[in-house]
Amino acid sequence: MVESFGQRLQERSADLGPLCVGIDPSVTALQAWGRVDHVEGLEFFSLALLEASIGTAVAIKPQVAYFERFGAAGYVVLERLIRDARAADILVIADAKRGDIGSTNDGYAAAWLSETSPLCVDALTLSPYTGVAALESFFTYAQSGKGLFVLAATSNDEGRGLQRSRSDDGESVEDMVLREIAQRNATWRQGAGADALGGLGVVLGATRQRPEFDLARLGGPYLVPGVGAQGATPDQVGRLFERCAPGSVVVNVSRAIASAGPERAGLRDAVRRWRDDLASVL
Amino acid sequence: MVESFGQRLQERSADLGPLCVGIDPSVTALQAWGRVDHVEGLEFFSLALLEASIGTAVAIKPQVAYFERFGAAGYVVLERLIRDARAADILVIADAKRGDIGSTNDGYAAAWLSETSPLCVDALTLSPYTGVAALESFFTYAQSGKGLFVLAATSNDEGRGLQRSRSDDGESVEDMVLREIAQRNATWRQGAGADALGGLGVVLGATRQRPEFDLARLGGPYLVPGVGAQGATPDQVGRLFERCAPGSVVVNVSRAIASAGPERAGLRDAVRRWRDDLASVL
Repeated sequence: MVESFGQRLQERSADLGPLCVGIDPSVTALQAWGRVDHVEGLEFFSLALLEASIGTAVAIKPQVAYFERFGAAGYVVLERLIRDARAADILVIADAKRGDIGSTNDGYAAAWLSETSPLCVDALTLSPYTGVAALESFFTYAQSGKGLFVLAATSNDEGRGLQRSRSDDGESVEDMVLREIAQRNATWRQGAGADALGGLGVVLGATRQRPEFDLARLGGPYLVPGVGAQGATPDQVGRLFERCAPGSVVVNVSRAIASAGPERAGLRDAVRRWRDDLASVL
Repeated sequence: MVESFGQRLQERSADLGPLCVGIDPSVTALQAWGRVDHVEGLEFFSLALLEASIGTAVAIKPQVAYFERFGAAGYVVLERLIRDARAADILVIADAKRGDIGSTNDGYAAAWLSETSPLCVDALTLSPYTGVAALESFFTYAQSGKGLFVLAATSNDEGRGLQRSRSDDGESVEDMVLREIAQRNATWRQGAGADALGGLGVVLGATRQRPEFDLARLGGPYLVPGVGAQGATPDQVGRLFERCAPGSVVVNVSRAIASAGPERAGLRDAVRRWRDDLASVL
């Protein structure tokens, strides 16, 4: 049986802790580093954050929007970042929030999860507006070790109205996502063992209140944004996930680390400090 | 006051009718045309459909997933397609289903809607899982004439559970999207005139039942998938939108047109036939 992304994450987190370094090369971020808003700046910023993360953070999470704004030229840089990261054996989570209906998802899944694609990463974020069951093309890749993080409760305020709407059975949208992902992990775990962590995860903002769904029952990993510049603290994360398995929570920090750059030493210090702070609560 | 995307669409539809030709270069589609699944096939397929659409269809809708699967090389082809289409003065709707939280959306909006981007199109599809209000970066571009189509009710079955969940006020998610978009169009119309069509539209699958929201009140355009290979007929579309303003509905047909290729004459016939069939009911 192929090792799941959840298992891989768990093993690596045991050594490296739960920090994922977000790579968000926005206009503002490049300017703060004294760089012009151009692909050269994009590449410098991305590779500097990668370098500072290797050996300390368990993963990097490039925010695809900030590469896409340069069109094909931005994707060339993203391909290079992914290639370098995978050569350095750090996990790559592409934050792309992709998601469409059936056959279209074959295209996105091939783009990000097929080993023959230049954009192939370890895990991908997905948006479930078309329904979790519409994401089947991605689930297929999870069988061969790829990871998925489906949006459940996002870190922003504006998402609550939709994410807390309820079905006729009284289940909220965020709980529906959590339950549907948990059910798919449970099926996989019948073969792999009840304690094994599957490859299907969710995005759960650290700024959000605990959903009704029992988080310990997901059977897959959590990707947690909202820490640092967005306001949540490591302690909040610790409390939110207190009953979850060790190594099942990966916490993203972007701006609070990038703001320590562009000097290499400052970046490395920030990565270590955030890693240690998060490791002490998870 | 800048002409809105809705106004532009309405003017052009008066001459050309309501057909949008979907460009979906999937593995299956390229194989059906006897092409290998490679960027050369991607380019051949895309440009052939563009050529068959010019002068007959009001818009083309490239499905970004099928370009993205080739990484940066696929985006090079997409840039070329967009450039050629805009030079030929046919509207381009990028079907990308993008959507994230606040500042990240700045990146996606710049990618697809800024005139300095190589991917700049006339309109873009968006996914609202993070809340319609989180899409503000995109709304800003609508003020300068760009169009948006936010997912409301998608054409697939799996989306119904989420899209029909209800808020505490009893409003379904799909109605919430329709209402929030209508409100923003209404604000814009206070300056432009009560009958003017704004730039903010929604995606509403032709395979879906009529939502509770009165479709005539959107004040913006509809992008309608689900016709042809997905099962809905022009008559169904006519009934669903019977009370909407002329030129406010653009209907996408992809596979049912591509299957008439690769011969040029067959493609042009299929585009004309679908255009005429749809024009007779809208």
